[in-house]
Amino acid sequence: MKGALWIIGLGPGDWALMTELAQERLATAEIVLGYEGYLASIAGRLRRDQDVRPYPITQERLRAEDAVNLAGKGHRVALVSSGDAGIYGMAGLALEILAGQGWTADEGPAVEVVPGVTALAAAAARVGAPLMHDFVAISLSDLLTPWEVIERRIRLAAAGDFVVVFYNPKSHRRVRPLEVAQAILLQERRPTTPVALVRQAFRADENLILTQLDRFLTYPVDMVTTVIIGNSQSFTYGRWMITPRGYPR
Amino acid sequence: MKGALWIIGLGPGDWALMTELAQERLATAEIVLGYEGYLASIAGRLRRDQDVRPYPITQERLRAEDAVNLAGKGHRVALVSSGDAGIYGMAGLALEILAGQGWTADEGPAVEVVPGVTALAAAAARVGAPLMHDFVAISLSDLLTPWEVIERRIRLAAAGDFVVVFYNPKSHRRVRPLEVAQAILLQERRPTTPVALVRQAFRADENLILTQLDRFLTYPVDMVTTVIIGNSQSFTYGRWMITPRGYPR
Repeated sequence: MKGALWIIGLGPGDWALMTELAQERLATAEIVLGYEGYLASIAGRLRRDQDVRPYPITQERLRAEDAVNLAGKGHRVALVSSGDAGIYGMAGLALEILAGQGWTADEGPAVEVVPGVTALAAAAARVGAPLMHDFVAISLSDLLTPWEVIERRIRLAAAGDFVVVFYNPKSHRRVRPLEVAQAILLQERRPTTPVALVRQAFRADENLILTQLDRFLTYPVDMVTTVIIGNSQSFTYGRWMITPRGYPR
Repeated sequence: MKGALWIIGLGPGDWALMTELAQERLATAEIVLGYEGYLASIAGRLRRDQDVRPYPITQERLRAEDAVNLAGKGHRVALVSSGDAGIYGMAGLALEILAGQGWTADEGPAVEVVPGVTALAAAAARVGAPLMHDFVAISLSDLLTPWEVIERRIRLAAAGDFVVVFYNPKSHRRVRPLEVAQAILLQERRPTTPVALVRQAFRADENLILTQLDRFLTYPVDMVTTVIIGNSQSFTYGRWMITPRGYPR
């Protein structure tokens, strides 16, 4: 029997923020693989007869290989990511592995990427409408990308007055990149430029902080915080951060 | 009675690609407002006892004002956008109008932005995994943004090796911006850089084209096409476009 590999974006983590298609594929899967933290967030919705395989963090390649191989053996496999699977998620690795194996639509398992609400959209919704104009997404993790590339991107994004969203902004051992990012952005933008720090959007332990560019580092930020830096037109109103749709004539 | 304003991202247009929360809010709304084209895509799911108010294109401000005023009178109002309401959608305008009226959480209607699968995530899912590394979203519409700002952003995005996503790439009267964008990107990237053109993702009339930077203008592109330009590492495999998670050491 022909297997299937569904690469699924879970959205921010609340079941109600998942798409109906993602819910349906999860219900139909025989095997569900993913980082243990994400699987924990949907554990109550999976069934006992499903083979749920949690993986520790950082073992993305192993997860993707196992998922590809199980689907190749004829199983219906769900490989899950938080947010959107195609934005800093599992979709790329899984497709790269399939390509490396010479996958074809005729002979290989059915493959489908099921999109989800990505972290930047979930974060933005919780603090108003900060992404109403052109924006960039930059991961501050230098695990697979040279720091020079990342720093250059921050400079270009700052120069272009893009709204800037940082994924993976900071970890226990990686503190300096976010400090450098702040310094670069302060060269181009007002110290009072609105900044939103969003952690666990739409979840019970959600934490929302609305602050400004010159002082956002005084607040706690970790790997799963989404950092949104406004452009020159962004402003706050109460607990909202709003970026206008355009520029004054 | 206290009204509610739910600003809802419908996702790419297929009901199954909507979040459960968006579906629930739509079912609970007394009044549903939005661009007539988006409302048509969900018409079969709305009930006869709901007051559905379609608006012509371009009347975004009127739509948002009507939605705010109806919620202020105590109605449960859903204001819908395609994709994510916070990314080139209706959320910003609605919140700006509320702010202009001096809205407060105590006295005004309840306000909630319900995120959705934004066009770039939906488009990416249908062509593989092109957004696995840092990317920019740029709208090529110069209705509210000076062309100089847009062109400068394209230059900076090209220089930074960002994956580039164009929203509103082209209309009947606006053809030149996409040609200029191509010329700028060709100065920095290989002519064979993968380009995806995605129209009506996940819908019956979906159209997917995988091509390359030096020739993508030979294909039809309109206002609702999402254009994804790869970075220096992006490659194609069959009908997939894949951007690796990092750079070779």
